[in-house]
Amino acid sequence: MLEKQNTLLDAYKNAKYQVTGHGKRDVSVLLDSFTNQTGQEESDMYGSGHIIDRFQEKMAAYLGKESAVFFPSGTMAQQIAMRIWCDEKGIRKVAYHPLCHLEIHEEDGLKELHHIEPVLLADPNKIIKLDDVVNMKEDISCLLLELPQREIGGQLPTFEELQGISDYCREKGIKLHLDGARLFEILPFYNTTAAEVCALFDSVYVSFYKGIGGVAGAILAGPKDFTETSKVWKRRHGGDLISLYPYILSADFYFDQRVGKMEEYYEGAKELAALYNACEGIRTLPITPVSNMFHVHVQAQKGEMERILADTYGESGVGLTGHLRENGENRCFFEVSIGDNYEKVSKTDLKQAFILLVNKMKKRTVV
Amino acid sequence: MLEKQNTLLDAYKNAKYQVTGHGKRDVSVLLDSFTNQTGQEESDMYGSGHIIDRFQEKMAAYLGKESAVFFPSGTMAQQIAMRIWCDEKGIRKVAYHPLCHLEIHEEDGLKELHHIEPVLLADPNKIIKLDDVVNMKEDISCLLLELPQREIGGQLPTFEELQGISDYCREKGIKLHLDGARLFEILPFYNTTAAEVCALFDSVYVSFYKGIGGVAGAILAGPKDFTETSKVWKRRHGGDLISLYPYILSADFYFDQRVGKMEEYYEGAKELAALYNACEGIRTLPITPVSNMFHVHVQAQKGEMERILADTYGESGVGLTGHLRENGENRCFFEVSIGDNYEKVSKTDLKQAFILLVNKMKKRTVV
Repeated sequence: MLEKQNTLLDAYKNAKYQVTGHGKRDVSVLLDSFTNQTGQEESDMYGSGHIIDRFQEKMAAYLGKESAVFFPSGTMAQQIAMRIWCDEKGIRKVAYHPLCHLEIHEEDGLKELHHIEPVLLADPNKIIKLDDVVNMKEDISCLLLELPQREIGGQLPTFEELQGISDYCREKGIKLHLDGARLFEILPFYNTTAAEVCALFDSVYVSFYKGIGGVAGAILAGPKDFTETSKVWKRRHGGDLISLYPYILSADFYFDQRVGKMEEYYEGAKELAALYNACEGIRTLPITPVSNMFHVHVQAQKGEMERILADTYGESGVGLTGHLRENGENRCFFEVSIGDNYEKVSKTDLKQAFILLVNKMKKRTVV
Repeated sequence: MLEKQNTLLDAYKNAKYQVTGHGKRDVSVLLDSFTNQTGQEESDMYGSGHIIDRFQEKMAAYLGKESAVFFPSGTMAQQIAMRIWCDEKGIRKVAYHPLCHLEIHEEDGLKELHHIEPVLLADPNKIIKLDDVVNMKEDISCLLLELPQREIGGQLPTFEELQGISDYCREKGIKLHLDGARLFEILPFYNTTAAEVCALFDSVYVSFYKGIGGVAGAILAGPKDFTETSKVWKRRHGGDLISLYPYILSADFYFDQRVGKMEEYYEGAKELAALYNACEGIRTLPITPVSNMFHVHVQAQKGEMERILADTYGESGVGLTGHLRENGENRCFFEVSIGDNYEKVSKTDLKQAFILLVNKMKKRTVV
């Protein structure tokens, strides 16, 4: 059973090329980012010190916010953001998408630790639009928008739609928070700076191990009194570690290395999605990606598709994905994120892989 | 003002020798522990994988517990331990010392996040004894004992007293939790294994940046169902990071390097405490240390004592402490922890430093 589960992942790992991501998440990710460190810089100490101050100031400036705080995780940062806005307004309700990270990946920390009730906005398969916000009946303290909406392939509203939601929230006294786990990745599509996006929001979280490819860690940014209060909650959560520098220094290193490559990743995603969409029974979501990520939906049983993909990798030397997820009886899907690996793939071999995949998809027994 | 505050710390740092600790908390602490890493080992992933499994198993075996979980911080680990035991019994009350870490250093996370009410046991200046537990009127789920009691100089009950408290708690259905932030450091005094101490407790937390001198991180150990539940809460707290290996690998490295040196640190602490106690107006707490740590109480105004100490460092080349804390108008104190630095100090220079200190304390105007 275990062996069968690992077949596709092994085929992916053993292929000459891997199409997605930045490379292996091994210890070299940390070591590479420390090669220029002499070791003599003093550790941050419980949220103070040169290393953490410098990075927080750098990110506040980049995001166009008054102040920024480094957190070990986005889970911690975002629950705390919700709590602060709820405490300020005195209403323990926030609104977010049904497939929000806080709703499906955090073991209900928001409810169990903060007793905050979420209002689920919009159909799970759609992004939140202005109409969803306007038609909401509940009084809430904060609306959280995830840009892009990861669990539905990384979809985005238009910038005008965003502007409309932001204006409406300000008018109604609703705080607007950005789940910007993949904020850097959407800037080429919006063709704006991070600060221009963040200006629409009261508070912002960004991550350093998605598009940036660091070890771990997050920044929470907003007004100074908000970030100061977030430090109190960071200590309460057990996130005010004596030393966070392993995450901070690596985040800073990969931020500098990759924040300028988001356009390249985005172009790669569009190119690769077009190749998938030329295959019978395969459609990407969105059809044309709006960031470095998209989902690939397949009208085929998971086991069958695993065999087709593993064969394709074996014959072409190109690994496309290591994991499929079932999505109903005869459907499956997987997520694609483009990073540094993509430019290393031989274009000839990639085309060959898709010629093979197109043929295999044509030949297969249609269910 | 800032300059004045830094005088003693600067004098300490600029001295040829520093008597306390393991050395600077700079980035080399991480780098040194990674020198034998090729970089090819795969990262742990959200609490799974070889690196974290291996260390958790190693620590469970060392502590004599069924299972162990790595946490980014003790603050997180201990709140969660309290929560699990309270949920199990259905009583949201725990008992601990008035100077417990949860009471004075965590911004009331236990109350604010878990709504657990603490019962403060014993006089702040004394350790918790069996009588304090027996005479407690409240029904509690868990009793937390910190060994040694850091804020009062690192005092310890006798092993027999501990055994009595453990027996009583078992009889009464009270869970007993060990705040073992400095567990390794007390084993020479008790002349037992860690497992023999931990056998008296239902759950145990240990830290890797005190006596062990790692970068950060903690282990929470106990029965398997307890540790499994703790993983759910770890995710809720935002501590289930994608990668904890920077802390785990450094903790493991320094554990191997220093766990066998605790006897040496303990002997050093006793030797140094005797030197302090030979000075007029200075007394250590405890008089004879029971671990690598003790407090030094001085009957002198903080500013005066800072000048005396800074002069002593300048004349002898031996730095004794970088920080004094006020303790009433004409009293101050500081904490001493013995680590790797102590053996590097020239004994001749150390003796010379104390000859100077003895003389300076004799000469000063008695308040």
